[in-house]
Formats: sequence, structure tokens, C-alpha cells
Amino acid sequence: MKQHLLVIVSVLLALSFTSRNVQALVFEPQNWWIGMAHQSLQILVREPNIKQANWQLIPYQGVSLVGVSRGDSNNYAFLNVEVSPQARSGELHFTYQLKGKSYEVTYPLYPRADNSAQRKGFSSKDVIYLINPDRFANGDIKNDTLLGMREAADPQSRGGRHGGDLQGIIDHLDYLQGMGFSQLWLTPVRENDMPSYSYHGYAITDFYRIDERMGSTDDYIELSVQAREKGLGLIMDMVLNHSGSEHWWVGDPPTNDWLNFGGKFSSTSHARQTVQDPNASEYDKKQFTDGWFVPTMPDLNQRQPLLANYLIQHAIWWIETANLSGIRVDTYSYSDKAFLAQWTRRIMNEYPEFNIVGEEWSADPAIASYWQAGKVNRDGYRSALPSVMDFSLQEALIKALNEPESWNTGWVRVYQSLANDFLYANPNNLLIFADNHDMSRVYTELGQDLAKTKLAITLLLTTRGIPQIYYGTEVLLDNTGSNDHGDIRIDFPGGFAGQIQDAKTQRGLNERQKTMQNYVRQLLQIRNSNTVLTEGKLIHFSPFDGIYSYARRNATDTILVLLNKQGRAVTVDPVRFQEVTKGSHTGHELLTQRPIRLNEMRSIPAHSAQLIHIKHTDK
Amino acid sequence: MKQHLLVIVSVLLALSFTSRNVQALVFEPQNWWIGMAHQSLQILVREPNIKQANWQLIPYQGVSLVGVSRGDSNNYAFLNVEVSPQARSGELHFTYQLKGKSYEVTYPLYPRADNSAQRKGFSSKDVIYLINPDRFANGDIKNDTLLGMREAADPQSRGGRHGGDLQGIIDHLDYLQGMGFSQLWLTPVRENDMPSYSYHGYAITDFYRIDERMGSTDDYIELSVQAREKGLGLIMDMVLNHSGSEHWWVGDPPTNDWLNFGGKFSSTSHARQTVQDPNASEYDKKQFTDGWFVPTMPDLNQRQPLLANYLIQHAIWWIETANLSGIRVDTYSYSDKAFLAQWTRRIMNEYPEFNIVGEEWSADPAIASYWQAGKVNRDGYRSALPSVMDFSLQEALIKALNEPESWNTGWVRVYQSLANDFLYANPNNLLIFADNHDMSRVYTELGQDLAKTKLAITLLLTTRGIPQIYYGTEVLLDNTGSNDHGDIRIDFPGGFAGQIQDAKTQRGLNERQKTMQNYVRQLLQIRNSNTVLTEGKLIHFSPFDGIYSYARRNATDTILVLLNKQGRAVTVDPVRFQEVTKGSHTGHELLTQRPIRLNEMRSIPAHSAQLIHIKHTDK
Repeated sequence: MKQHLLVIVSVLLALSFTSRNVQALVFEPQNWWIGMAHQSLQILVREPNIKQANWQLIPYQGVSLVGVSRGDSNNYAFLNVEVSPQARSGELHFTYQLKGKSYEVTYPLYPRADNSAQRKGFSSKDVIYLINPDRFANGDIKNDTLLGMREAADPQSRGGRHGGDLQGIIDHLDYLQGMGFSQLWLTPVRENDMPSYSYHGYAITDFYRIDERMGSTDDYIELSVQAREKGLGLIMDMVLNHSGSEHWWVGDPPTNDWLNFGGKFSSTSHARQTVQDPNASEYDKKQFTDGWFVPTMPDLNQRQPLLANYLIQHAIWWIETANLSGIRVDTYSYSDKAFLAQWTRRIMNEYPEFNIVGEEWSADPAIASYWQAGKVNRDGYRSALPSVMDFSLQEALIKALNEPESWNTGWVRVYQSLANDFLYANPNNLLIFADNHDMSRVYTELGQDLAKTKLAITLLLTTRGIPQIYYGTEVLLDNTGSNDHGDIRIDFPGGFAGQIQDAKTQRGLNERQKTMQNYVRQLLQIRNSNTVLTEGKLIHFSPFDGIYSYARRNATDTILVLLNKQGRAVTVDPVRFQEVTKGSHTGHELLTQRPIRLNEMRSIPAHSAQLIHIKHTDK
Repeated sequence: MKQHLLVIVSVLLALSFTSRNVQALVFEPQNWWIGMAHQSLQILVREPNIKQANWQLIPYQGVSLVGVSRGDSNNYAFLNVEVSPQARSGELHFTYQLKGKSYEVTYPLYPRADNSAQRKGFSSKDVIYLINPDRFANGDIKNDTLLGMREAADPQSRGGRHGGDLQGIIDHLDYLQGMGFSQLWLTPVRENDMPSYSYHGYAITDFYRIDERMGSTDDYIELSVQAREKGLGLIMDMVLNHSGSEHWWVGDPPTNDWLNFGGKFSSTSHARQTVQDPNASEYDKKQFTDGWFVPTMPDLNQRQPLLANYLIQHAIWWIETANLSGIRVDTYSYSDKAFLAQWTRRIMNEYPEFNIVGEEWSADPAIASYWQAGKVNRDGYRSALPSVMDFSLQEALIKALNEPESWNTGWVRVYQSLANDFLYANPNNLLIFADNHDMSRVYTELGQDLAKTKLAITLLLTTRGIPQIYYGTEVLLDNTGSNDHGDIRIDFPGGFAGQIQDAKTQRGLNERQKTMQNYVRQLLQIRNSNTVLTEGKLIHFSPFDGIYSYARRNATDTILVLLNKQGRAVTVDPVRFQEVTKGSHTGHELLTQRPIRLNEMRSIPAHSAQLIHIKHTDK
């Protein structure tokens, strides 16, 4: 699987010895594959003064060098290569002449893995476990601090690097498999060689390199292989909107328009609705899309076609190289919208059953749904993004469990949020969550209330969509008293030396933590063994008496979910549920394994969930 | 204009004298017109045992009786008549035989008024004045209490009838014209012969009759004529969802399915989102649509085709009879949605440039926009309703002016609400308002703050949409301390005997009231003399420093509106507005009549609005 090769440079003419440092030559992508749907490949070459070079491709059947694009900087060239379906794997040999000397570069063309194009992306069949790798587990203490990397480890600092790495995740694969998770979303692990506050990973300084403090690209591939063997897919977190300010292109951008606002900081307005708003001023549209998050994250101008191509190809390169099952795109809508359509189309064209989820942090489903593939937008915009994060449901869920019940507070928040599914082209492909790495943890937000937290997770694991659980939620990680990201991204118990608790073994966990962990495991087991929970039609009922209820239904099974938020038992009249129970007289409560008579009034205990399974063959 | 005739019944055969009370014979509609787009007419006949009658039409060129529909009750028949384009106006003569006797009924077919079909409905060119007629002005004290009507006047009671009537409105037409309003929306004035709490008008007991305590149908027509002469259109408030429980059909419905839930009270859930929600249970859908508001308002089953036709025809009858410029539909979405599509289509087919606004009380534009004509809905639903009320903007406006400014509070509420215009097929045809008869008054909600109230009205009269002002807002009517509908619908000053204040003459008004009244008049004058404010494209800017700003723009003019909510002057940099001012150097502030240099920093005084007019010919 070590497909990523170094570019080999050799001086062709004995007469032309050179003192140039040939190590500086960068080819990106480092390799490509035969048999891709898109036959054009654009290779970025970076080296001082390379803009002036003349390029040839030594004849290779089915491959041709159709041209060279050049930007404003002298230090880049973009080789435009066509790889026809007839091309076979092997090594391309490019030659170039610069200042009277000739050089040759070897460029690998690999065969694709079997069924690469047909790979299935994460889906509602899955449950995603979201990890901040720096804070999850330190599997290799040797890479905590590295010479040549700007920031050293500082495990005591909330904003410092704690030493978590890819090996730490590999060490937990058995645990995660045992819990019942089936996908891993790691916040970015690519190089973030920033002077400080680099642990979060979103200030990428090299799009083609794993941060060495996390491990190598080989380690990343190894994680993918081992995870896949245990039934876990790997989702890569990609950032298209910006890079870190220490990225090599910041000081020497290939074109003058590579960075927005001329490479100078001007803050984004975060006014995401300008994208859809027919009344938006051009001033606001530009400030939103072109504005930067922070001065250390220069905003990329994806309207620049060379950059657009770069971002498309790097995504495909990682999918092929690391056998990804999906991509999560950071700060999705902040990028140029035409580019986003192109980027998603190109990827989905290569992998029609793949999945990509965009982060559109808006609780307004009208705005979030705009970006999902299949949505018919009034302005004619067509996206190919299969999945969007459901911030509306996240916000509703927390409010629902914290607010008293009334006509417009409490469970009705969730009911109304899901009622807006008519806006989405595919509600079951939304990523649903109670919290993530950018917001206070669910256990904290629910006032450290175990019963409420169980209800929240029960809903996530039984309603429509693709559930995502933030690491440590299963052992009630908590940031009460602080909204600092460092506290939200607290060290996972057992991942680091000297910790009293270990989630893997339950060592040191208190009873509440054990209860939660066992409950999450039980729920995941129920979900994973009942496809009706992952693919069945959702039918929900307006909240009554502190109960939110819904069914998942397919041709053979129904599971009726009743969530009682009240501090007292509530009696439920079966009449309401006749449309989902009709024809059946008996069911089976999945958490307690008790039989249920469907036509009798029944009591739902305080603060609890019931999952009533009805087989339509049982009459 | 006295087009409404009594049905004349005569016994044809001298031998068959009858003791039946022929007065009981009801024909609805009482007349019809030639030259309608829809050639079918269905006449409801009500009389004891009329179901058994045999009917003939005495030959009349272009008109034929194609059949008689009969329901479950013995006391109704529905004559299905075809009126071809060749038919001329005149009198139809129907004969019927019942129990061996024959009768003849005369039925008028009128010519239509010139350009009736081409009438223009209210639009963004207009400003609507919303009146509760019982609380506006008592122009005729003789009709306050009437023998034979169940409820007498009780002016001291908040929920009682105060005596306001159509003559009272006629008496104020000069005042309303002088203020600058151009449309009148009266809450329902049709018969509400209920035992109590009938003043609001929404419990209609006869769809074809003006409540006699308001005046006669002739008075209603007279109001329309006189209003039209003063440039004011008349909008009728229609209720399709329910009738009053004292309606004649409640005790003897034409069919057994005329009323929902078998004629027995079962409360609506008000869960309007069940209409769109793909996850909604059938249980909830039925409870919303078929449930009743209150026991005194039986819910109508518009799936019953005879009733659907009745409701369609009565609307057309009122448009023709009273020369209406529009219809407001109460509790719009609570009616059957297929019927609503049919009802709006039939009316808009007769009057393609008419306007109808539906009340969909949801602050979620995704839900409200579903009902507007031209919206492409995912479920295929197609409405012909031209206008919807913008509750989202109403809610946002109040919050905007009450909340402190922050990234997610204050003016950004309005900005975000209007950003959702991408959901609407026609945002400029939305009815916009700061309050109405069902909610606490704007002056009250803004803490009796004159400056804020002026800003609210300035926004309404300058942004996109059709502004509606609730009666008395111009003199700061107030319900501070009470949300009782009776206090929200307080008597208009000068409309009733014994009042100290008179809005018409400013007698007794305090300085704040006079200031507001003059300001509203000035703003209306500005709006009415600048079509760019009614038809220009809206371009708005994200709020900054307590300022919300936007332009209305057309080929010849721009008006830039700056609303300063802060308690201090705010300096504004013209750079932000270059896309709307570009090419022009000078403008003109419309409220103060001062010239403005567009390329200079300028100061917006505390709590104030600026309306800067730019002629694109002025360079």
C-alpha cells in the first residue's frame, strides 16, 4: 500500500552538472492512477524558476502532455496530462530543460484497487465516531515533539498538542468495533506546521502530507487497512476554504489571485445566507466568501482554476491512496459556490456511491438543504454534495430536553425540525449529532443529566439520518464550566499515560459512566441488527404529555420509539399508533426484551425510552 | 348597484295552493353573471323536502340545467347549470314539482361590470389599512342592537359588540385617503348571529349576508363605491375553514360529511407543518386539518365537492357584487390543501390580476412560502394563492428593535428574515406588517417607544412587500398591560360618542400621537410618490453598528434607507454603498429634504431613519 513515491530527478546530460538543490522539486499529486473517469490530470511542479522550463513526455501509450499552464510566480508550472482509458500502469518520464540543462522526472501511474470506483460511502447504515486525534490516544510517544516542526507537545495546555496520534487510534480499533461504531471521522491529521495552536488540524500547511506528529502517510494507510478489517470506514476531514499561514504557497502563491483579499486579512462576516439571499448586496457576498476566518488562515480563492483543480485532485488522491469511505468538508459554504459544485461533481463522478458531508453551520434547514445534491433551488444552483450536517436537529434536541414542555418548547423543537425534511432532497443522508468538536458536549449541555443524555443518544440512534457520536460521549466526557475548545476536546480516558480512567477496560469509570457506555453499546447493537432503524420510513407523532414518539417502518418490521422526558410515568393510548401497529397484536421491547401487547394502554416509565419491535408477520 | 335580488316564488297552478312557507326557499348564489370564464354554476336550494323535487329550466338560449345533485338531507338540492359564452343577461325561470304541485323561481343572470375580469388586485403599490369594523367607528347607532339578532351591543365589555359599522368606515374615507392609504382590509362583516363574542366576525352564520349590525349588503357595496372613488380598494376577509355554530347548515347539513369529525368538536392541533412534513403521521395530519378551532366554530370539510363549489362561488359572487380588490383568507392552511388549490385556481382564473392573501401563521418561511403561487414544491403541490402573510418578518422586526445588537440578535433578525426570500416565488407580493388584530400592538411590543415604532413603520413602508398598517397605529393605540383581544381591538379615537380624542381632527391627541400620525402621513406620501419604493429591487446590507441599511432600485432611481437603532449618532462610510450609489455624487434625504453628498462620511442621528433619494440622471 506504499503507493506514495518520491519524485526521482536525474540530470540527463553529463555536461550540465548543476548546483541546484533538486530536493526542492515538488510534484503534486505525487502519482496518479489509470482508469479514472476524468482523463485530465494537472500536475503542479514547484521549484525555483521552473516556470521557464520546457517540458516533454517521453512517449507512453495512452498518455500525452497536452500543455503546460503557468501562473504569476516563477516557481511553478502545471503539467496538463491526458490519461486515456487505454493507458496501462507504469512510469511516466517527463523531461524538462531549464537554463540549458535537461532533467528527467519519473512519475508513477498506478493501477486502481479493485472496485475503487464502486466504493460505498458512509450511509445511514453506519454510526460515525468523531475523534480529535491529538486528544484521543497517544500511541507513539516518540512523535510527540519533533525536530523541524514548529510546535512541541504541551499536554498540560488546553490549546497545546497533547500527543495523540494515529497509532493511538489503531490501538482502540477493537474497542470501537466492540462498541458497535462503523465509521471514523478524524478531525484533520494533515500537516499543521504552525507556530502555535496547531493541534486542531484546520490550518493545513501541506495538503498532501500527514502531520508527522500524528504519524506518516503509511500510518494513515495502515489505520485505514486495519479499521476496514474490523468493519470501520475512514472519513477524511478536508479543508477547502483556507490553508494555514505557514503553508508553502502563502509566501509564494502560484498566481496573484491564489488568496482572497490579495493575501491580506479581512474577516469573513459569517453571513452564510448571502449565498441564497436574492436581496444580498455584492459587498456582503464578497465579505462572506472571500473574508478570512482568522489571520493565520489565509482564505483560498477557488475561482482560480489551477487552485480548483489542485483541490479536486488532492481529494481524489486521498480517496485512492487511503481507501477512504467518505469526506467531511469543513466550513463548506465559505468556499466559492461554483467551485463547490464542480468539486463535488468531479468526486462523485469518480465514485458514484461515495459520500461527502458538508459542514453548513446553520440551524435553518432552508439554508442547509440548499447544498444537498438533488435539491431543486430557485436560483438554479445544483450541488453534488450527498450529505449535509443537521445543525437544526442538534439545536432542537438540546432545547427539547432542557425546556419545559409547551406548545412551542420542548419536544416540539425536534418535531418541527424533522418536519422540515420536506426541504431536503434526502433527509436520511443527513449527518445527525448531539454535539461535535466545535460545541459544548451534550452531557454538559444537558446539565450532566444521565437520563436526558440517554434520551438524546436514543433519538440519534433511532431517527432518520446518519448518527455521529463525539468521542467520549459514551463515557460522559464533560466540559461543564468551560466552553473552551480545549475542554471540549479533553483527553480520552485511557488514551494517555497517567490517567486514572480507561474507557476501553472500564477501569476507574464511575457507575454513571459505565451505565452510559453499556447503554450506548446496547443501542448500537440494536441499531446494527435492525435495518428498519437505518433504512425504514420515519413516521412521527406530535409530542403529547412529554412524550415524543415515532416509528421506523419497512415492509417486514416496525420499531415504535417512545421517549418519555417527564419525571413521572406516562400512560399511552394505543389508538394514536394504530397506523403503525395495525394488523399486529404483539410486539417486543428491545431494551428490556419484554413482550408488549399492542392494543393495551401502557405506561412509559419516567425519563426513559421504549423501542417496541413489531414483526409484520406476527399477528 | 343593488344587484342582489330576492328569489321570487310563485305557484304556477291555481289548483295547487300550498301552505308551505315559501319564504324559506333559499337560492345561493342569489344570482350569477354571464361571461364568466367558468361556465358551470351550481345553485344551492334550501327548503324542506326539496331534495325530492323535479326541476326544469324554461328554455333560455345558452343556458341549460344539466342535472341536480342531492346530498343526504332532504332539505337541499343543487342545480347544476351551464352558462355558455353565448348566453345573454336576463332572468332564468326554473320550475319544480314537489308533492304534486309546481312552482316557478326566477333567477337573475347579470351582465358583468366593465373590466371586471381584468380588475387589478391590491399589490406592492398599495398600503393596506386593517380595520376591526366593530371597533373602528359607529356611524349608525340605530343598528347597534337589533331585534332578532342574538347579541346586543355592550360597548363597555372587552369582548362585546361596540357598535362600529360600515357607515363609520364610510365616514372616515376622507381621513384614510388623506393619510395616504389605498386599500381597506376589514375583518369579517358577514353575519355572525352568535349568542356571544360575535364582534370579531370569524364565526360566520351566513356567507351571503352582511351582518345587519354592520349595515346591509347595499351599505357594503356603497362603502366599496365610495372608497374606490377616493382611490381605496376593498379587501374582503373570508373564512373557508369553519362557520359559526349558529350557521343554518350546522343543524341540518346538506351531506353527512359537511362538517369534520362528524360535526362533533375535536380540537385542531395547530400543527400546520403536518401539511409539508414527509414524516407526519396520518393521525396528526387529520387532527390538524379536520380539528376545530373552538366548539362554536364547526370545521368545514372542503373535500365535500358540493361544499367546495359553494365556497368557490360565494367568493366570486362577492368579488362581482362588491367590486372587491382582494381577499384575505383566514386560517388558510387549516383547510383541505387540494381544495385550497382548486379555490385559488378558480378565482384567479376568473380574475388573473386579482390578489388573495392567505394567513399562514408560521414564522418559518419554508412553510409560508409553500402556499404561494409559483412555488415549486417537492411534493408537487401547486397553489394559485398570489400572496401570503409574512409572519417571519413581523416577528423579526419586533425582536430586532427590542434586542441588543449582536451577531445573532437585533437587526440581524430582519436581515436573516429577508434573506429567506429565496424561498418565495414572489417576495414583493408578501403582505408585511408589524402587528394585526390577533397580536399585541407594535407600540406596546416596542415598549411604548415612539422612535422604535417610527423605525418599524419606516421599514414596513420602504422594504419589499405590501405593507399593512393596523388601524390606530398612526395614533399609537396601545394595549400595554393586556394581551386580551378586546384591548388589542380597542375603539378607534373619534369613532364613538363620548371619546376625548379624535384621530381625524387630531382633537385631544397628545404630542407623541400627533408626531406619529404626521410621520406616517409623510412616509405614505413619500412611498406613494416614489414607485422605486414599491417596485424597485431590494438590495440590503448586513447590519453594522446598530444600522440596518438597504436600497430600493430601478432603472431611474435609488432610495437608500438607513435605520439607526442606536441611542447615539453613527457615522457611516459611503464605501459600503458604492454598488447602489455608483455613478451618482449627490442625493436628497426625503424626510428632511436636505441634499446629500454621497461620497462623504455621514452621520445618522440617534434613533432615526434616513431615506436618501438618488436620481440616476444626476451625476
